Amino acid sequence: MRAVTCEDGVLEVADVPDPAPDRGHVVLEVRACGICGSDLHARHHCDDLAADAAATGYDAFMRSDQSVVMGHEFCGEVVEHGPRTSRRLRPGTLAVSLPMVRVDGRVHTTGLSVHAPGGYAERGLAQEALTLPVPNGLPARTAALTEPMAVALHAVRRGEVGRKQVAYVIGCGPIGLGVIAMLKATGVGTVVAADFSPGRRALATALGADVVVDPAEQSPYDVHRERFVTAEGLLELAVGTTEKLRSVPMLPWWNVFRAADVAGLGPSAPVVFECVGVPGMINEVITSAPIWSRVVVVGVCMGNDEIRPSIGINKEIDLRFVLGYTPAEFREALHLLADGKVDPTPLVTGTVGLDGVAAAFDALGDPERHAKILVDPQYEEVEP
Amino acid sequence: MRAVTCEDGVLEVADVPDPAPDRGHVVLEVRACGICGSDLHARHHCDDLAADAAATGYDAFMRSDQSVVMGHEFCGEVVEHGPRTSRRLRPGTLAVSLPMVRVDGRVHTTGLSVHAPGGYAERGLAQEALTLPVPNGLPARTAALTEPMAVALHAVRRGEVGRKQVAYVIGCGPIGLGVIAMLKATGVGTVVAADFSPGRRALATALGADVVVDPAEQSPYDVHRERFVTAEGLLELAVGTTEKLRSVPMLPWWNVFRAADVAGLGPSAPVVFECVGVPGMINEVITSAPIWSRVVVVGVCMGNDEIRPSIGINKEIDLRFVLGYTPAEFREALHLLADGKVDPTPLVTGTVGLDGVAAAFDALGDPERHAKILVDPQYEEVEP
Repeated sequence: MRAVTCEDGVLEVADVPDPAPDRGHVVLEVRACGICGSDLHARHHCDDLAADAAATGYDAFMRSDQSVVMGHEFCGEVVEHGPRTSRRLRPGTLAVSLPMVRVDGRVHTTGLSVHAPGGYAERGLAQEALTLPVPNGLPARTAALTEPMAVALHAVRRGEVGRKQVAYVIGCGPIGLGVIAMLKATGVGTVVAADFSPGRRALATALGADVVVDPAEQSPYDVHRERFVTAEGLLELAVGTTEKLRSVPMLPWWNVFRAADVAGLGPSAPVVFECVGVPGMINEVITSAPIWSRVVVVGVCMGNDEIRPSIGINKEIDLRFVLGYTPAEFREALHLLADGKVDPTPLVTGTVGLDGVAAAFDALGDPERHAKILVDPQYEEVEP
Repeated sequence: MRAVTCEDGVLEVADVPDPAPDRGHVVLEVRACGICGSDLHARHHCDDLAADAAATGYDAFMRSDQSVVMGHEFCGEVVEHGPRTSRRLRPGTLAVSLPMVRVDGRVHTTGLSVHAPGGYAERGLAQEALTLPVPNGLPARTAALTEPMAVALHAVRRGEVGRKQVAYVIGCGPIGLGVIAMLKATGVGTVVAADFSPGRRALATALGADVVVDPAEQSPYDVHRERFVTAEGLLELAVGTTEKLRSVPMLPWWNVFRAADVAGLGPSAPVVFECVGVPGMINEVITSAPIWSRVVVVGVCMGNDEIRPSIGINKEIDLRFVLGYTPAEFREALHLLADGKVDPTPLVTGTVGLDGVAAAFDALGDPERHAKILVDPQYEEVEP
């Protein structure tokens, strides 16, 4: 079959053997596969990523000297079943799968391991148990967005945003945009998005952001500055609220302190989604976000990074790193798309055939032109 | 009155004016005042601390060129009431107070601001509304530990440790030891403590740690290594659990994914309390702690610090910075001490009079000899 291989950072279309489905596998004929920011990164820096993965206990991440078929955001039709499958999904069923397959007894991440070829190809491998039929006639090009939207849903869940809390999305790349859409789909009232690029800001609005800010002109936190407390204001709250409650005759004095907590010191702070992922951004958020902010680190910053812990301490920042999603979140993302609760289609700014993948990788460097580019192996376009 | 002043890093006993209680103030005759690690740090680096506080919106932190009476962990007898006080606490009542006072309309942090003199003195100032009587005949030298134990209680609360989760306390200085005591007082089953110092490890045991580890010999996480999952194990869980559940005939297949989350992927990870506070420690914890660890940053690391975000991401670390406590937590800490639910007295390794404060500051540099030193202005000892 035809596939795009990546070796030593070079993407090229090649003839490779069809995936051979082993126990529990199905083969999907790829209809659409999204290009992920991780792929752009893995193309040139997969050895660094592999080292970090190995440090966490997974040593099968792709290496630069291997020839790997990437692509882990794909949707396709079931065309073949391996041994020991239930054949629950009939041939021709449009399906998506969590990007993991077990090969020779070990689980590999699809499209990011030489043992688990991905979706920049005519056919891709999937684990039957992790494969879901696409419901409601959802088009393949939308269903292919299930995976990144599951990443966004997981980030939103980890953020535990209350409906009345303000959510800030810093950086409106594909994941930031997905986070905006999932915040609105899960009922968050106010979403403020920030990006230097006018094109990305327009997409943020299209995906549901309530306020969109150019950080070159305004700090996003200034939009609701009146809601947030400074350190001195916090001390005043502690003293002032306690004093005021002391003067309430009906309140038992020994409960004053707990009442003071509830009245004045309950965390009313925002949740910030850091979706940029370049060095210095985590500290930039710690420095500029309000006291008590919960910061969900969604952007992937490689290498070492500097933070100033004392500022995090003074603000009681909660810094939550996120990765991937659970099986249930993946399924939920698919159904949010299929039920029309989330419309991620504004994300898609281009489609290419296999011959256009290398050009698409390059084009994704320009935030003004592109957010998400889909690969459709049956398509002949080479310019995204 | 006699007091210890700090100016340009020099601690000396001086005659200073008695505190003049303004609206809402009470004066306490100091019976005991703990020496806090923050004081050791503020003695030499208060300008850095002041800059960080100002960046968060509090600009009244002590400066090195001011002459400040430090000490914010004190217990004393009520001896005087300022104007507009309720006089609820009769003269002679033993009391502790949240270390904040309002002076000229602005709230200052007691013992860390030139406008709010602290407890290294015969008399200290307190805000009446924030002052609590010491119950149950608790001795002043134990009641003086209310403040640091409230810090520990707040850290434990922010850690949200489940009773069946393992808690790791990295660093057994006074705050780490307080965290151990509060973890056990709040019902956490297993507390593992780590410190290079044999003396500190003995104190950790005295305060209730279930397992005590010398990190030079063993990683504390190895104690329960079998409980934690690696990245590859996590992938296997996701695939294996889903496959296994797929084969359960009674389980509707669309619920398999949620069941897989519950059965295999529920966070069972530990809570780690970083109580060392030197550069590199946050990254050391991120690097060595298990996947999904919640890390409560209790130690105060000054200056910039390096972390490797990609490892935090791969493990989905939750990094929670903490500061201080709420009014209710302060009151609760006092009552946990007074009710005998927590016995922090092993913490106290020495007591000095005012003339011994400078020597005590120096002695606290040796973890083998000291954890917490109390200052008792009526005491004549100068060697801690």
